[in-house]
Amino acid sequence: MFSGCSAENPPIRIGDKWTSKIIVCLKSGPRRFSELQVPLRGVTPKVLTATLRAMERDGLVTRTAYPEIPPRVEYELSPLGRTLLEPMAAMCAWSRAHLHELLDARESAL
Amino acid sequence: MFSGCSAENPPIRIGDKWTSKIIVCLKSGPRRFSELQVPLRGVTPKVLTATLRAMERDGLVTRTAYPEIPPRVEYELSPLGRTLLEPMAAMCAWSRAHLHELLDARESAL
Repeated sequence: MFSGCSAENPPIRIGDKWTSKIIVCLKSGPRRFSELQVPLRGVTPKVLTATLRAMERDGLVTRTAYPEIPPRVEYELSPLGRTLLEPMAAMCAWSRAHLHELLDARESAL
Repeated sequence: MFSGCSAENPPIRIGDKWTSKIIVCLKSGPRRFSELQVPLRGVTPKVLTATLRAMERDGLVTRTAYPEIPPRVEYELSPLGRTLLEPMAAMCAWSRAHLHELLDARESAL
């Protein structure tokens, strides 16, 4: 996701391509690392770790380590992270309505 | 911009970080290459050319070359490109309301 509202300011990178998917996965509540890996097929552990760390650093996700044996770590959307659900829903509605047009154009341009 | 609605599908790259800025610049009507360069400070001609070509290929932008001397080329949002203005407005509203929180968190994590 990118923030590119005004033309003048430099674009600010909010997340890589996995960020929005992780937000969707955390919508319904906290998840463990392994619970994120299942729906996010195609993400490597290394990339998932890096993306979660970046989201934590940006205040979008909180990471809670429970002192249990075996250790349990859960990731949860922060209040700030939850505010992204609304604009993401607008983008998803766009995708459902129009993404096929874009992909058709892309394919016929090959 | 990325389309990452469902967790299962691979993320689809709709544009690089300049795409949303170019859409904003074309909101009010067609623009020439040089007219895009002025507000998009920081973009190199090479990157602007590549981004506009990708947007043309994706059906978001139309390119019209007028047979004049000197030649005139204008870029304009297609109807499909205009459909992106609404979800982008939602993202921009989010930025105005919350981006400073994200940047504060990012800075304090350094």
